[in-house]
Amino acid sequence: MKIITLLTDFGSFYPAQMKGVILSRLMEGGGAMAKEAVTFVDIAHDIPPQDVRAGAFALLSSVRFFPAGTIHIAVVDPGVGTSRAGLVVESGGQLFVGPDNGLLLPAAKALGVPRAHRIACGFGASSTFHGRDIFAPVAALLAEGQSPASIGPRMRPKEIAFGKPKKTESGVEATIIYVDRFGNLILNLRKIPAFDIRLKGIKLKKARTYAEGRRIEPLIISGSHGFAEIAVNQGSAAEAFRLKVGDRILLEEI
Amino acid sequence: MKIITLLTDFGSFYPAQMKGVILSRLMEGGGAMAKEAVTFVDIAHDIPPQDVRAGAFALLSSVRFFPAGTIHIAVVDPGVGTSRAGLVVESGGQLFVGPDNGLLLPAAKALGVPRAHRIACGFGASSTFHGRDIFAPVAALLAEGQSPASIGPRMRPKEIAFGKPKKTESGVEATIIYVDRFGNLILNLRKIPAFDIRLKGIKLKKARTYAEGRRIEPLIISGSHGFAEIAVNQGSAAEAFRLKVGDRILLEEI
Amino acid sequence: MKIITLLTDFGSFYPAQMKGVILSRLMEGGGAMAKEAVTFVDIAHDIPPQDVRAGAFALLSSVRFFPAGTIHIAVVDPGVGTSRAGLVVESGGQLFVGPDNGLLLPAAKALGVPRAHRIACGFGASSTFHGRDIFAPVAALLAEGQSPASIGPRMRPKEIAFGKPKKTESGVEATIIYVDRFGNLILNLRKIPAFDIRLKGIKLKKARTYAEGRRIEPLIISGSHGFAEIAVNQGSAAEAFRLKVGDRILLEEI
Repeated sequence: MKIITLLTDFGSFYPAQMKGVILSRLMEGGGAMAKEAVTFVDIAHDIPPQDVRAGAFALLSSVRFFPAGTIHIAVVDPGVGTSRAGLVVESGGQLFVGPDNGLLLPAAKALGVPRAHRIACGFGASSTFHGRDIFAPVAALLAEGQSPASIGPRMRPKEIAFGKPKKTESGVEATIIYVDRFGNLILNLRKIPAFDIRLKGIKLKKARTYAEGRRIEPLIISGSHGFAEIAVNQGSAAEAFRLKVGDRILLEEI
Repeated sequence: MKIITLLTDFGSFYPAQMKGVILSRLMEGGGAMAKEAVTFVDIAHDIPPQDVRAGAFALLSSVRFFPAGTIHIAVVDPGVGTSRAGLVVESGGQLFVGPDNGLLLPAAKALGVPRAHRIACGFGASSTFHGRDIFAPVAALLAEGQSPASIGPRMRPKEIAFGKPKKTESGVEATIIYVDRFGNLILNLRKIPAFDIRLKGIKLKKARTYAEGRRIEPLIISGSHGFAEIAVNQGSAAEAFRLKVGDRILLEEI
Repeated sequence: MKIITLLTDFGSFYPAQMKGVILSRLMEGGGAMAKEAVTFVDIAHDIPPQDVRAGAFALLSSVRFFPAGTIHIAVVDPGVGTSRAGLVVESGGQLFVGPDNGLLLPAAKALGVPRAHRIACGFGASSTFHGRDIFAPVAALLAEGQSPASIGPRMRPKEIAFGKPKKTESGVEATIIYVDRFGNLILNLRKIPAFDIRLKGIKLKKARTYAEGRRIEPLIISGSHGFAEIAVNQGSAAEAFRLKVGDRILLEEI
């Protein structure tokens, strides 16, 4: 069983085209791969258009749950058609394929020490859809057992980072790196401060679970992504505090 | 071929994490399961957040189409992190895994006489994401052939019901239990009343198909879910009648 | 490995019911098919309700990327329950199953010379959900190796077309046949005119890639669907020009 995940900002039917390309290549061989099952796992295709950071967070949050040998294709790619390189990155036994714009790196670094290779072959690609015309064929080659080294030479990949929280006189400054479907605010903060916390003048209850809060009571939780989250039990913290991705907030010591 | 369905209110990328956990456990063994294909079927991940009843309806509507041996993981779970139990339910040869909040029961009861087991093991779960940290690993154990009894002792599960329609002097009172993507109103009513029907003063044409109505003519149909539906040909009944899930309506005898 | 794609306007959980029906039939046999993996690929389930043309475009855009032997089920079906026929269409080694309303034809014709068969068996179908009750069982029969001829007699299918661009005195008139998630406008025009182009008084830069434009500069591109596209780098052409599917536009010669 070969596991291939996909993460894009494409919405529908483009991801299917990428799967079609991979399946076509694997069936073509007519050999072992045509018989071995491929299990596609869609991580997300609703990343906000061209939001590389949101894509990087979704990938970072997800890859540690996949087994060694998994191939992740991730495409959030405002620079498609420019001279930005395409990458294969190996880390911790998993493989990543996508654009060299930082998208793959937080996830790859979370698994180990990434080794990146520039994709050397062009596959006569369209200029506008490298996900289908370059990254999918490369993923198929990797699924067939080709090594990252055979795809291209080593290179130093671009990185993006989610920033670091900052201790200030009055507390800790952190950045909202993701807002989930429930309106929970995920911070670039691994550990909840020991002090009593106020956000915009409102006390945050330290809780282990969303359900610990009274209805609409704001909470701060060590969330399932491995980061601190601000949540409102049975409500949306994003709406309650009028906050969004990228906002820098002060967790004030009371 | 092992079939595992997923139904959640998680939107994107959390369901992929659940699949990753299952695939990791099955691959780990390195034995037969690593070679057998897993077919994941996503029933829905766009259940309105924490709407247990909408999730229960989607599951109820879907399970009768799956073969014996299918494992359904369903997570709509406002009580995550509280003392609410986790369940494995066997019914009619299919297995269900999810929270003990009624979500699984209408579907399980539709297939036969449910036998519920409390999930006894905690897997060192996070407090906020039991779907990934408890229910997915349990589903993997079941996929490997472990029995529900090995997961935990029998217990009596919580139930939810969609209520019953009520005969009144002027007709039949029913409740809208689901509104689908087309704006069709699904009622908690298995059989369309024999009398001529009016809703909010407007006659409903009894039809076998949506297409039987003239454009925007309101219809009542024996729908594909097995319940009566109010529909508007090439329009939205929800909009036309300004009705929503949970609304109690009077099907008035003319 | 058997590849089955699905394209519908059903949103969630109905597509899963179709997959359940297919899996149930394949498992029932208990023979080879129960062991062979099925790979489902969802092309799209968010086609605008009952928009046959949008569905036809999504299918047309996607099928050339799939290998021979792929079975495509497509259901956008305002005429469900009327006397419109159901079809199996074979073209270029791929198979299509769906309603006879034109949905399948642009894709089938792009692959070769389509041979259409009327679905003769009714499967005791519900009147409202042929996707699950007729097309899915037929796809399962095809997956098991039955021939299109065994499903029913040859017939002449209904066609839809995306129209043709028209040369006028002042330029070329074209129709917007699809608007993608990024707001790019896809035209029924295979080749970008040689002359300098103005749309609504604004010059369109001829570009090979979205990234060639300056921020918010309007472009015309030979897109990845194989049609000309109007795009705005890092913006939405649909919003910028206030245009939508079906609009007829003039690409004016400057």
